Amino acid sequence: MMKPALSRPVCILGLGLIGGSLLRDLASTAVTAYGYNRSPSGARAAAADGFDVSDNLEATLQRAEKDNALIVLATPMGAIPTLLNALNEHAPHCGFTDVVSVKGRVWDLVQERGMQERYVGGHPMAGTADSGWKASHTGLFNKAAWVITFDHALDEGDSSPTEEWTRLWTDVAHLARLVGAETIPSRVKHHDRAVARISHLPHILAEALAIVGDNGGALALSLAAGSFRDGTRVAGSAPSLVRAMCETNAEALREALDEAINLLTDARTNLDAPNANLEELVDAGYRSRIRFEARSGARGRTDSVSPAPVSTRPVLRVRPGAPGWIGQLIQAENLGARIEVF
Amino acid sequence: MMKPALSRPVCILGLGLIGGSLLRDLASTAVTAYGYNRSPSGARAAAADGFDVSDNLEATLQRAEKDNALIVLATPMGAIPTLLNALNEHAPHCGFTDVVSVKGRVWDLVQERGMQERYVGGHPMAGTADSGWKASHTGLFNKAAWVITFDHALDEGDSSPTEEWTRLWTDVAHLARLVGAETIPSRVKHHDRAVARISHLPHILAEALAIVGDNGGALALSLAAGSFRDGTRVAGSAPSLVRAMCETNAEALREALDEAINLLTDARTNLDAPNANLEELVDAGYRSRIRFEARSGARGRTDSVSPAPVSTRPVLRVRPGAPGWIGQLIQAENLGARIEVF
Repeated sequence: MMKPALSRPVCILGLGLIGGSLLRDLASTAVTAYGYNRSPSGARAAAADGFDVSDNLEATLQRAEKDNALIVLATPMGAIPTLLNALNEHAPHCGFTDVVSVKGRVWDLVQERGMQERYVGGHPMAGTADSGWKASHTGLFNKAAWVITFDHALDEGDSSPTEEWTRLWTDVAHLARLVGAETIPSRVKHHDRAVARISHLPHILAEALAIVGDNGGALALSLAAGSFRDGTRVAGSAPSLVRAMCETNAEALREALDEAINLLTDARTNLDAPNANLEELVDAGYRSRIRFEARSGARGRTDSVSPAPVSTRPVLRVRPGAPGWIGQLIQAENLGARIEVF
Repeated sequence: MMKPALSRPVCILGLGLIGGSLLRDLASTAVTAYGYNRSPSGARAAAADGFDVSDNLEATLQRAEKDNALIVLATPMGAIPTLLNALNEHAPHCGFTDVVSVKGRVWDLVQERGMQERYVGGHPMAGTADSGWKASHTGLFNKAAWVITFDHALDEGDSSPTEEWTRLWTDVAHLARLVGAETIPSRVKHHDRAVARISHLPHILAEALAIVGDNGGALALSLAAGSFRDGTRVAGSAPSLVRAMCETNAEALREALDEAINLLTDARTNLDAPNANLEELVDAGYRSRIRFEARSGARGRTDSVSPAPVSTRPVLRVRPGAPGWIGQLIQAENLGARIEVF
């Protein structure tokens, strides 16, 4: 497939794992890309590797404003309010996106500042550890899901998004595609509910399992094998990152956690019966896992025999701005489909 | 290390994944080994591969009685009562062991029949799928933990085990060592409590996670990546096997499940606070996982650079029958240590 063209330069704020990898990937395309990093040492490391970077936020934003760059907020959640304020001051006309793993809080901040017309949210689902420039590498986004939000198009009284916002949305989709990701449209709330189930809840269960296993002492840890190792793997993630994800998505995570607690409490009751019976949980869990395996197909399989695994996600072709295109995005969201912009 | 010698032939009842793999491994040693399989087709397949097998239980047990074989019960739990009765009838003098993943129920059946003096329980922690002779292969037990019980040595009024039982225990330990496993002594209750935490609870949590993810519909399954895939992997195990393990260990599993539910309920409460805070769970989970990683070291790592990974389990050298040897087994159990019999 032809690589899509981007209508403007890209300015990346924050050069950690995600921002740095994005800058590296863009270097091999026709797109002009440059970046800013708050820590001078990180900026120097990126400059030493030959990239166009600065540790001066104001100057970087003024440059972005001058060449109408697409700004990518590639910092953790905590830095977003400050960056939004800086954008308002120094780059008031630039469109921007972000890569934060929970979209609700960012969307709130954007709305509070009246910046909706300039914003399209993003979430590349690749990597969780923000370990600075040194962790960044090319190819990080290859075949990864990259969620792109479109809530602004559905704002009340705003029956059809502007041409400018539509162009911004198109460029964010192109950006994800340029680095090999699969773009999946989703509204903020739907995204946050989905990741609560398949990303945040797995972390919570892994933490609990690690603790209960550890409570069993030396014998339990000595006997622990594959099921315990796999089930606790993500409990080894940096606690600050796990907390940032889960705590900023508290509402959706509570809902998912309640469902899990109910299932476990029912299982507890069924174990207590004179004839312990776990048929309900185990049969439903097995069917669910088989459905997931069928759905994910070759994706993520390291033992695939295919040299170029093909995505098993359904695909929808969308022309931004064409009649009904927002309806197509909603349809893609319902299907978990990736889109191709043409 | 020198391969240990076994003082008698080995007779394996049940030639599925565990029993079949044991028979295959013993074929390359000096030990005489033969087997029985209830299904004639399984017995024929093993015979066609050149092994000494039969589908006649009575004849096999009579042979075992005649040459004083060590009998290995290598069937699922459901067949154990029938086999014990058959042993009493046709091989009343043979010592025996088993490979069932929960030890309490088997120990109850053995005690009900007054067969304690002839029994040493075993649990090779390798494989969960009992898929018949065709799934069996050599090397299955290499570096695996093989738990060996010793409750009979602590029976009231039986201050010191008999020479005959001590020889039987020694032969079971030799058997595990012969096929490359690491022998870990444990009493029945301690074993069952440990595996509830590190094997049965992981299955229960995986089932629940698979269901909650699936409840999120197409978008959630489309976005699911590594943490969900790892966290639900064992939900893909055959439901009948998962239920057999968990339901026969209901008491210990309830205790582990209660601990998990309490941790999750606390997390739920902390998410509900005005400032969602998961510090307690996430920090404790992280520390537990790090402890497990440190403890398991190279074990089970597929990315190890070491060509012959060395076990990180502590080791105790034990001479069965020597003064204080049962105390050493209890010490090894407390440490989750492997033992070397000399």
